[in-house]
Parts: sequence; structure tokens; C-alpha cells
Amino acid sequence: MFSAADHDFMARALRLAERGLYTTSPNPRVGCVLVRDGAVVGEGWHARAGEAHAEVHALQAAGAAARGATAYVTLEPCNHHGRTPPCVDALLAAGVGRVVAAMADPNPLVAGQGLARLHAAGVVTEHGLLEHEARELNIGFVARMTRGRPWLRLKAAASLDGKTALANGESQWITGAEARRDGHRWRARACAILTGVGTVRDDDPQLTVRDVETTRQPLRVVVDSRLETPPTARILDGGPLLVIGAVADAARAGALAARGAEVLLLPNAAGKVDLSAALAELARRGINEVHAEAGARLNGSLLREGLVDELLLYLAPCLVGDAARGLFDLPALAALADRRQLQWRDLRPVGADLRLIARFAE
Amino acid sequence: MFSAADHDFMARALRLAERGLYTTSPNPRVGCVLVRDGAVVGEGWHARAGEAHAEVHALQAAGAAARGATAYVTLEPCNHHGRTPPCVDALLAAGVGRVVAAMADPNPLVAGQGLARLHAAGVVTEHGLLEHEARELNIGFVARMTRGRPWLRLKAAASLDGKTALANGESQWITGAEARRDGHRWRARACAILTGVGTVRDDDPQLTVRDVETTRQPLRVVVDSRLETPPTARILDGGPLLVIGAVADAARAGALAARGAEVLLLPNAAGKVDLSAALAELARRGINEVHAEAGARLNGSLLREGLVDELLLYLAPCLVGDAARGLFDLPALAALADRRQLQWRDLRPVGADLRLIARFAE
Repeated sequence: MFSAADHDFMARALRLAERGLYTTSPNPRVGCVLVRDGAVVGEGWHARAGEAHAEVHALQAAGAAARGATAYVTLEPCNHHGRTPPCVDALLAAGVGRVVAAMADPNPLVAGQGLARLHAAGVVTEHGLLEHEARELNIGFVARMTRGRPWLRLKAAASLDGKTALANGESQWITGAEARRDGHRWRARACAILTGVGTVRDDDPQLTVRDVETTRQPLRVVVDSRLETPPTARILDGGPLLVIGAVADAARAGALAARGAEVLLLPNAAGKVDLSAALAELARRGINEVHAEAGARLNGSLLREGLVDELLLYLAPCLVGDAARGLFDLPALAALADRRQLQWRDLRPVGADLRLIARFAE
Repeated sequence: MFSAADHDFMARALRLAERGLYTTSPNPRVGCVLVRDGAVVGEGWHARAGEAHAEVHALQAAGAAARGATAYVTLEPCNHHGRTPPCVDALLAAGVGRVVAAMADPNPLVAGQGLARLHAAGVVTEHGLLEHEARELNIGFVARMTRGRPWLRLKAAASLDGKTALANGESQWITGAEARRDGHRWRARACAILTGVGTVRDDDPQLTVRDVETTRQPLRVVVDSRLETPPTARILDGGPLLVIGAVADAARAGALAARGAEVLLLPNAAGKVDLSAALAELARRGINEVHAEAGARLNGSLLREGLVDELLLYLAPCLVGDAARGLFDLPALAALADRRQLQWRDLRPVGADLRLIARFAE
């Protein structure tokens, strides 16, 4: 159905879209390539919410050459006024002859409308070319649009026998420098970094993006039922912080607010943080991908509630022994048949360590 | 120093040697290729102790064509009378002109003697071609010869969070059928399969080689300080069994012996089995590779005493949680710097599981 040239141009558009990996949120990463008579006449990518969309950049680059051209776009062009005018208008005004979208807009309220309007105006429209790749690139945006909950990637680093820290809490350097740098790249693409108050107390992490060039720091989010984040914690420095609690404590909330943190109470019936509500709230705020780096307790709670989509696990080539701390605090299973099943996505060495990416079977 | 043709012929000899992977013990796996004027005139491999060595098979195949030929042998030809006459005699009698050995005999008592005698008789001798590969193929034989202790490969299967079994002991099917079949191939190449009485009681395994075509069953060895292996245990069927205890108990020893097991007491000062002495005893009996499949306790003891050379770990893509049983019962480390460091040897998917091979840094 699609030609080899179609594939090549869409692949190029996807590579352009990837340039927005660290910056476009809450918007999706989108790339656009304009081709006339087999030659690229313009291309563009979306860099930042509020700035021009990929199509507009490409049309500006092409100028009059856009007339009769084919536009390869990694996502269906928008047909609504957001912070910028609809791209469909711009494509029609430029006289584009054919629009190929990798995927339809995942927002069920507008899906298909952009392509339908182009089609009604006489433009040839197609979609579904490299759709899988396009979806992967915006997996968080798609998750937020289709289910009102961000994509949650749980990152952990452990020894080969699944230990994250010694019984005494020592953990900082279980994996090597390259794995840590790789971990920062995953932080950088996330819109929010989620942790628990236990990790804040034990490790006092900053949870900022370092070792990676980025213009944006993700929102840091601490699950902290009783608002026990110490006002001296390093996480209170270095950018926006949201502390989600469950128990009203005006003094503690005030101390955290005085340090610049936003405090939000989302209790569940058990008096703990309602994690599902917390993620819904993050989605409401435009958070597409959540990067969780926490201890066995919050990890276990997220797993138990079925809120983890993907596991990003670094295994160091060392053994620590069963006395040390494990990865996931989960209730004892009655039968192995109850275990949580995953599917491998990617396996590769990173420095001296091994990186495993797995997703929960759908 | 060696030509591309030399490499090719030695690689061929190594492939021939590999055919003895499941059968040659206590002898090493050896292959031989005889080449005259660039053409293979005979080849052979050692199949079974007591039968002809690789060189003799190759010389028989070559007949008169062996005169002036180059012999590529994966191990230095023997110069002593064992169960068969020295291969050096046969090579000299056949008039071979050049002998290339991948490696010298690892036995320090005879190393170099075969090549020296050939050299003295006017044969061109060389060694060190694909030596690394030759050593790997006979890693257990080399270990036994050079340190009087077999190569110990510890096999374990765990969930991604390092759990081998539920708290209630359920474990049988944590990894898939392909990983289990792969595990049987590793059992088949071992001379002995080592386990602990805890595993015998919990899982009642046979620990025989199945799913793999082999003419030989490894010796099964149970570490069982108080001779508590139940006389009804399935491990007492299906071939030779050695129970190593630490406490004399005539009744229990008699019951095991009546079921065909050999009972041997090797106590240490703490009244437990002296694992180091047990491995030395296995080496004395010609055991090259030991394949350990045990629970967290024996695994932990072997690790603690520095007796594990290699880890063969199957990770299933599932999570079980920290309430379940772990891989290695080790005392709590005081500092992460004390952790046991490994080096990756091989990482690959096996069916739906992941297989990791790692060795302890030397």
C-alpha cells in the first residue's frame, strides 16, 4: 500500500519527531517532512508547547514548494485551536496534495477529524504508516489520551540476585556510571519523576536530570502520606516539586510550601495516598510519562495496584545475598500462577551492567 | 604466526572435539585434523575414556597419507601410557611432519612433554592457536588439573526480582520449557550434579539428564550433613548417587546404601559437610565439571567459600515479590564494596526467559 519512498520519508519524520523527546510535553513529539517530485522541500518538528507545530515549521521551510506536495506527519494534523491555530488550515492554505499520517490522533474526542477535513477538501489522506513506531514515541501521550493516566515506567537498579541496597540501606553505587547516565536519559524524557518518602529519607536524592543536555526539568513528585519529607531534603531544591499526602498536617504542609513545594492531599480509604488518583491528577496536569524511582514499598504498591506499565531494570554483575533489600514489597503469593507476567522489550549491556526493559502483558 | 588455513583447520578440530562434550569425562574433549598439501586426509575426536584418542582416529582415517602431514590437535598429544598407548608414538610412527596444538597439556606433571618429544624427533611443533577456545571447551579438565578442584557452575532459575520459589516452596515452573531443556544440556556436559538435602526434600528432583540425547548420566551428589535424604526420594533412582554427610548415623547410612547410594562422611570443624573437601574428592574421582542446582542455603555456602566459578542464571519475565525465596543465603554485607563481583560471559533469550552466564572475577 505504501511505497518504499513513503517508508523512508516517514522514518525521516519520526527521526525529526524524536528531537522533541525531552521538550514537547505535555504535547506529543511530532515530525513532518514535505516531499514534492521525490525531493524533500521542507521539514520540521515540534519543539515545545506553545511554539509552532511540526507541520508549520515544514511549510515555512518549503514556502511555495509545498503546493502539490505530500506531507508525511507522524501524528494526524490537528483541526482545533489550541495554543496555535489548526495545522489542517495551514496545510490547506499551502495547497498540499496528499497527507500521510503515521497514526490518527489518540484523543478520542478529535481522532480522525483532521484527516477527514483534509479529505473533504480534496486532499489525498492516508494513515497507518510506521504507526507502531509513532505510538511508541508518544507512548505517554497516547496513554494519557486514551485512559486518562500517564505511562508509568518503573526504574530500578539491582544486583544479579535482585537486591537494591544492603540491609543497612547502603545503595548508591550498585550499578556503574554508564547505567546511571542511561538512567538520566530516561528521566529526561519523562514529564514527572515519582518517588516515595522512604527513598527521600534513605537516599536524599535530588531526582533531577543530570549528565544529559536538557532545557527542562521534570516535575518531581513525592508520595508522602504523612508529609514527612524533611524540609532539609535535597529534593526541595532544583525545580518544581509536588508532595502528595494523605493526612492533613498544616504545620508540615506549611513547612514544605515555605520551601517551594506544592502539597496535595489525595487520601484513599486506608488513609494512604490514593496512587490511582495521584496518577489521574498527573494526567490532568498534562503529564505523559512518569518515571518512578522508589524503594521496595512504593514499587510494590504501584505493582499491586496495576499502575506500572514498564520496568526499566539495570542489573549489576554482582551478588549481594538474601539479607539485603529486595526490589518489590509484595504480599506472599499463594500460587506461582498469580505471579505478574512481563514481556521483554529490550535487553542490552550498558557499561558493565545489563539493562532490561519489560512490559506487563496486556 | 599462524596462517588463515591453520586457523580454519584448528577450528575444525575444535568442532570435532565438541562432539565429545557429553561423553569424554574424566578425559578432556579433544579433536584432531590431519592435513597434507592443504587437504584434510584424516580427522577424529575422542569419544569415551578407554577408547582411542582423537589423534589415533585421525591417523587411522589418513593411513599412509599421514606421512608428512600436519596434525592439528586441540590439546597437546599425550606422551604417557594411560588406558591407551601414547599418541606421540602413533604420530611419530605415522611420520607426521608438523604438530600444531591449541594448548599444552594443563597437567603440570606432563605439560610440554609430548610436544618436546615430537620436537626432539624432528617434528615441527607449535602451540597456542585458538588456545582460549580450547581451554573453554575443557574448562573443567583444566580446573581439575591445575587446582585439584572441578569447575563449579551454579545453575539457578528465578523471577526478574530474583525469586526462585514462593515462600510456601512452590517453584517447579518459574521458567519455561525451553529454559528447562537448555538446563538439561548443561547438566549433560557436567560430570556431576550437586544439590542439597533441602532441595531433595522440597522438590524431590531426579536431577538426571532428560530432554537431551546422551549415553551417560552424571553422578548425582547430595550434600546432606545429617543423612536426612529420605529413602523414598526420587534421586535414589536413575543412576549413581553419592550422599556426602558430616555426622555418622549407621541406620540412615545403611538405609541409603540399601537403596544403592554411596555414603561418604566429610565433616568440617562445625559438623557440617566440608564443601571444599567434597569438591577435592570429586576431582580425585575424575569429575571435571560440577553442575550445582540447589537452594539458597547451599548456594550461599558455596558462594561464601569461594567455590563457585560460574553462574548460569535463567530469569523469567515475571515478578514474584520480596516475600518469596531468594537465590543466595549470604550473611548481610557491611558495605557494598564487599559484594561479589562477576563478569558477564553470555546474555541471551532462551524461549520466553533470559539466560545470563557470569563468572567471578579472578
